[in-house]
Amino acid sequence: AEIVVLPGDGIGPEVTAAAVEVLRAVGRRYGHEFRFVEKPIGGAAIDATGEPLPADTLAAAQRADAVLLGAVGGPKWSDPKATVRPEQGLLAIRKALGLYANLRPVKPHAAALGASPIKPHLLTGVDLIVVRELTGGIYFGQKQRTADSASDLCEYSVAEIERVVRRACTLARGLRGRVTSVDKANVLETSRLWREVATRVARDEFPDITLEHQLVDSMAMHLLAKPREYDVIVTENMFGDILTDEASMLAGSLGLLPSASLGSSGAHGNAKDSHQKVIGLYEPIHGSAPDIAGRGIANPYATILSAAMLLRHSLGLEDEAKCVEKAVSGALDAGIFTADLAPDGHGVGTRAATAAVLEQLQ
Amino acid sequence: AEIVVLPGDGIGPEVTAAAVEVLRAVGRRYGHEFRFVEKPIGGAAIDATGEPLPADTLAAAQRADAVLLGAVGGPKWSDPKATVRPEQGLLAIRKALGLYANLRPVKPHAAALGASPIKPHLLTGVDLIVVRELTGGIYFGQKQRTADSASDLCEYSVAEIERVVRRACTLARGLRGRVTSVDKANVLETSRLWREVATRVARDEFPDITLEHQLVDSMAMHLLAKPREYDVIVTENMFGDILTDEASMLAGSLGLLPSASLGSSGAHGNAKDSHQKVIGLYEPIHGSAPDIAGRGIANPYATILSAAMLLRHSLGLEDEAKCVEKAVSGALDAGIFTADLAPDGHGVGTRAATAAVLEQLQ
Ligand SMILES: CC(C)[C@H](C(=O)O)[C@@H](O)C(=O)O
Ligand SMILES: CC(C)[C@H](C(=O)O)[C@@H](O)C(=O)O
Repeated sequence: AEIVVLPGDGIGPEVTAAAVEVLRAVGRRYGHEFRFVEKPIGGAAIDATGEPLPADTLAAAQRADAVLLGAVGGPKWSDPKATVRPEQGLLAIRKALGLYANLRPVKPHAAALGASPIKPHLLTGVDLIVVRELTGGIYFGQKQRTADSASDLCEYSVAEIERVVRRACTLARGLRGRVTSVDKANVLETSRLWREVATRVARDEFPDITLEHQLVDSMAMHLLAKPREYDVIVTENMFGDILTDEASMLAGSLGLLPSASLGSSGAHGNAKDSHQKVIGLYEPIHGSAPDIAGRGIANPYATILSAAMLLRHSLGLEDEAKCVEKAVSGALDAGIFTADLAPDGHGVGTRAATAAVLEQLQ
Repeated sequence: AEIVVLPGDGIGPEVTAAAVEVLRAVGRRYGHEFRFVEKPIGGAAIDATGEPLPADTLAAAQRADAVLLGAVGGPKWSDPKATVRPEQGLLAIRKALGLYANLRPVKPHAAALGASPIKPHLLTGVDLIVVRELTGGIYFGQKQRTADSASDLCEYSVAEIERVVRRACTLARGLRGRVTSVDKANVLETSRLWREVATRVARDEFPDITLEHQLVDSMAMHLLAKPREYDVIVTENMFGDILTDEASMLAGSLGLLPSASLGSSGAHGNAKDSHQKVIGLYEPIHGSAPDIAGRGIANPYATILSAAMLLRHSLGLEDEAKCVEKAVSGALDAGIFTADLAPDGHGVGTRAATAAVLEQLQ
């Protein structure tokens, strides 16, 4: 299998290197041959080519079996007057690959509960997954700027809502059969459409699934007050961005949360170039953390867990995925904490954390 | 002074009645004459007149010195096909009175920390206030619906951003001189304008204030991980809606959080009708809680604390405001908890909680 690696900026190169090491070890252990092709994206790509998503990077991603991404962005490219920004590379690749469903599982690890701001008794048993719509909404609507105003259009089509709700309901079938759809239907027209479509899809196509609706403001509370009550949460792009970062606090640190962005088979933005494979892009939900970049102290667990999702969703290697997840759990159980997880702020570096995972893999 | 009371729906009538009782007692104690005029809004107004904000209600609010509101909405008026909704009454009165700055203070009360999902050691010393822009953004932009799509426009003008940032900076002057402006400038054009304008206003008009910028997704995390580090947070309408409900969890319960919505003097939407008074609307940040309506168990503290904000911001009665706030603190210290605050879920009713506040007022 060919895996395109997009290290990106900041700590991106450090954490993707760690995940590649783990994937190589899994390959050796299970007898798979993984080929890794590295390409620039984000700020690194702007520096190299002037563009945040060079055509060559996109083409490689389209050909690959899966894409592993670090993170993009940093102060170097954050001039408010800049016309190209690293984040555009990330948004563009999500859109071009048709990755409409961003899966963000949150399952607090017992050994890391100390790092969560939430009271531990609320966290035991929490095991939820947010399915965030990733290629629509206000992220991709028309933007305008005049001398004295600015606007962003939030738009959703029925088809865009249907496919992501279907993905969430399908996922819920393998779990406890419950889906919570989050919107702001008391104010937004897009949310009223969202609620209608979600209701219809669940009723007509998933009679075995229990669908509930929550307003986004209430959800921001309930996620903290009773996180155990949620299984699969499905929501639009902007709400998903906010709620998943909030939900990361249940797990103690952003540094533990992986994500998978999935499309449909053959729906890679460019219809002519479609093939029957589901391309997936896997990335930690944390950012490029420029303040700690290059210091060897970044937490690699979220990227390693993203590699596990890659094994599961793009390569169909469930045992291998579980093996990686168990290895990370083992390292956490053994108390191998990076600084973001260590109660006193002192922790091991990226290499030591990666080595601990590799050791658990044996 | 004339105070227009808009009980609204669900528990609205119960909690506004409690706050009116407290205001009457304050009036007696300090020798003020408060006149109360009750008018319908929301679902109650739809039932009575067909409209969520009857002209007579708006006219009374425009004439008054201040407006005290309960909450609007409920399942009775939530048919997705309905063309009038209770929430429209709330949005319409905010807009018509020009209430562009919604102040939501969050100061966890020691006696109520048990009810918060957050670890208590993170909460001691938390004292922040969110200034939410309330009459612009995606709430009020153009909405469209076609057979297979829907859209909402998020729009901000320079003037809308300037006035709310000024309000936040002015507030910060009386506090610790720090303002955190929250946006999504790496994706949204409105957020890039927001950041530019906030930066300029702070630099040119408030050189004594330290302004920081946070992305909304990071803010959703930091609010939980290090709530003590924030003083005044200013943000746009939709982000403010989500972040303040999230922040309410720091205080243990939505039932403790008041809000004040303020405009400018003479800027009541209708320029011809302008007078030099700042109208303010005061409401708890919780909703109408239809599930517990009419049962006498609603928590009245947030509405009573909103009445304290009314005394402070609309009537200029600072001592009286402090007196009410101390009385609520006293009731909490005495362990007078409604069900939402009681560790075992058993609590006193609305009357007993109100009586405890009245007793502390003496
Ligand atoms: C970097 C940014 C554009 C991105 C987003 O908002 O989607 C990030 O916050 C994420 O959640 O993956
Ligand atoms: C009822 C609803 C329209 C309202 C809002 O979203 O502004 C409420 O959630 C609030 O925060 O006051």
